[in-house]
Amino acid sequence: MKPYREMSKEELLALKEELDAQYREVQAKDLHLDMSRGKPSAEQLDLSMGMMDVLNSSTDLKDSEGVDCRNYGVLDGVKEAKELLGQMSEVSPDKIIIYGNSSLNVMYDTVARSMTHGVMGSTPWCKLDKVKFLCPVPGYDRHFTITEYFGIEMINVPMTPTGPDMDMVEELVSSDPAIKGIWCVPKYSNPQGITYSDETVRRFARLKPAAEDFRIYWDNAYCVHHLYDDDQDFLIEILGECEKAGNPDMVYKFCSTSKITFPGSGVACIAASPNNLKDIKKQLTVQTIGHDKVNQLRHVRFFKNLDGIHEHMRKHAAIMRPKFEAVLDTLDKELGGLEIGSWIRPKGGYFISFDAMEGCAKAIVAKCREAGVVLTGAGATYPYGKDPKDSNIRIAPSYPTKEELAMATDLFVLCVKLASVEKLLETM
Amino acid sequence: MKPYREMSKEELLALKEELDAQYREVQAKDLHLDMSRGKPSAEQLDLSMGMMDVLNSSTDLKDSEGVDCRNYGVLDGVKEAKELLGQMSEVSPDKIIIYGNSSLNVMYDTVARSMTHGVMGSTPWCKLDKVKFLCPVPGYDRHFTITEYFGIEMINVPMTPTGPDMDMVEELVSSDPAIKGIWCVPKYSNPQGITYSDETVRRFARLKPAAEDFRIYWDNAYCVHHLYDDDQDFLIEILGECEKAGNPDMVYKFCSTSKITFPGSGVACIAASPNNLKDIKKQLTVQTIGHDKVNQLRHVRFFKNLDGIHEHMRKHAAIMRPKFEAVLDTLDKELGGLEIGSWIRPKGGYFISFDAMEGCAKAIVAKCREAGVVLTGAGATYPYGKDPKDSNIRIAPSYPTKEELAMATDLFVLCVKLASVEKLLETM
Repeated sequence: MKPYREMSKEELLALKEELDAQYREVQAKDLHLDMSRGKPSAEQLDLSMGMMDVLNSSTDLKDSEGVDCRNYGVLDGVKEAKELLGQMSEVSPDKIIIYGNSSLNVMYDTVARSMTHGVMGSTPWCKLDKVKFLCPVPGYDRHFTITEYFGIEMINVPMTPTGPDMDMVEELVSSDPAIKGIWCVPKYSNPQGITYSDETVRRFARLKPAAEDFRIYWDNAYCVHHLYDDDQDFLIEILGECEKAGNPDMVYKFCSTSKITFPGSGVACIAASPNNLKDIKKQLTVQTIGHDKVNQLRHVRFFKNLDGIHEHMRKHAAIMRPKFEAVLDTLDKELGGLEIGSWIRPKGGYFISFDAMEGCAKAIVAKCREAGVVLTGAGATYPYGKDPKDSNIRIAPSYPTKEELAMATDLFVLCVKLASVEKLLETM
Repeated sequence: MKPYREMSKEELLALKEELDAQYREVQAKDLHLDMSRGKPSAEQLDLSMGMMDVLNSSTDLKDSEGVDCRNYGVLDGVKEAKELLGQMSEVSPDKIIIYGNSSLNVMYDTVARSMTHGVMGSTPWCKLDKVKFLCPVPGYDRHFTITEYFGIEMINVPMTPTGPDMDMVEELVSSDPAIKGIWCVPKYSNPQGITYSDETVRRFARLKPAAEDFRIYWDNAYCVHHLYDDDQDFLIEILGECEKAGNPDMVYKFCSTSKITFPGSGVACIAASPNNLKDIKKQLTVQTIGHDKVNQLRHVRFFKNLDGIHEHMRKHAAIMRPKFEAVLDTLDKELGGLEIGSWIRPKGGYFISFDAMEGCAKAIVAKCREAGVVLTGAGATYPYGKDPKDSNIRIAPSYPTKEELAMATDLFVLCVKLASVEKLLETM
């Protein structure tokens, strides 16, 4: 098939008629499918059911230091949990604080603390006229929701195949003291699946921020979430790089087991420099007596070590890989050569990012919804929900079954075609 | 023995010599005991080990509405958890939000949210020149630490045998719009074990605050923590009272299973009016995708219903009661009639509150520490750690074994005597 742009009005009208008929057929099927969020499937959750057997009523619930994990205490996590999540985060255990079930919660609390108490002695952000964050786009909607909630102005920074546009990041961060942070998903990024290049990470580490309380919010959500055993992205460890560059305090690194065991019943952590950890603990000791240590033990005893996590993730990959490939193959087959969209073939993570023709994303998502398939809202991958080109759509292939996914993807490509034809006809 | 105040200098000197000798004997024992915090004993924690068997790898982890509790979602808690904690909180499930493992964390977050976003549309407290909280004293140190951390000015309100001095509370709350809250532990209060009288609760509900965003922080930590089956305190339900009084939005009620199952691995909740819950959820949905639903299920399936909780609490009481009685009996026997201290015999909760002669609390705690018994720091039961009379000491009998407790209490009464004698000699 030739590119849509090269079609005559008559060809497009004929095509539209054909696509409309197909669309009505799908509508008749009364689908109810959800590809909106990066939720693991039931099959993936089943992989962790063994974790429910790890502890029982005769288990010794003392940690390796003899602490009774059932009782109060231990603000920053039990020793072996710091070791395991330290390994996963590629830092030493003494740079780790273990939290509760949600790294999003840790990020929220980090911003909230900065609002009321500043960062390592800086002016509380709520006392400043203006606070800004850089937001590589497309990005993770829940990050943007946090900064928007606190009235922080968000500045779009375009993503490139090697990470955020670092020329722009360097320029802005070094010149504007109101810029206090940047949201990063550096590995298998949400939604594009891009991993920051070595050069990008090194440039991050060498930033010279105008604000002393500027921090990189390094959300390493997909650190072990590879799709392929023999073809993985590699990300340089940012804390070490920052240290080498003389900026040891410039980064907070977040991580969790949410998409490893059970989302919502996992263990989250932050990795940071000793100065940052000291600053955080001053607040944490006021906020809580400690997080759920029994759940920390449960995770450690289930995985035993980092190899255990990697082995477990290979089982996830075996479930995720065919789903990703099914969607990508359909995109290739159905949309290849039509020049009405582009997509990236990620090697890990949870999403496929699709860029439609300008001005088509909302229409595509609406058409899918009207035929029973819910996608992430168009615009969600941009701050304030505003995609300036109305182009990006995040596809989450994990949750539906393979059969559901096939139906949903068929509908998706149909809606892409239909919306594109309509757009082209509009401008004729 | 006659009251110390009636003794002559010679009698006191002779007594001091005798007590000094006893003290040296205890020091020689090289004790290492901790009565500082309200921690359950290992024996109490053992009561909940059955909870570790409730879920296993073949358990259906769907809740009663069919939600897969392993996955993301359900911001405010699974249905049956809201029902159970609603029963425990004496409100309907639709007035409940289930949180993570710590009600202290919920209280912290509640104050933090008010700082940055106000309360139901009010001016964020961080934008105000002055924010004040009323603090019934003696009270819970961790409450005071939260308000101090946020720079909130704390005003002492004396406790009476029926609760806080309500004349003072009414006067202050109705006249000063900077007063935004009051910390209350209304049942078996920390540290005195006082339960607010019906009249006190009703006067709370009928407050006419000068500040629209004034809230009662009702920390019902010991709602089911009776020591006696046949002699329990009763507390009127505050949400219902506030509603009746036309103040439905004036109270946040906090509760948790921390001292029911495992501290740190329990389930916490807030109970509040629909308006407050709506306000809270606006923030909560930014902060997290949801709390640990698997742990919610674990708790519900372990207890089944409120009767299950009451039955469980009777087992706790059977362990706690003899400890409380041992301490109280020793106080009666050793200090009765000496007029160097007073104490309350609580019917529940976790603490015994001891009021020493003015100016003696620090000395008593220091003497205990020097002989190997750690008590809660003197002053901790007051805002800023400043007990104006240097008199109140919180005794936590739960954690030590009975033998340890006996030794610790013997040392305590010895130190009370010694510090009192020294004080009296000082002023002669």
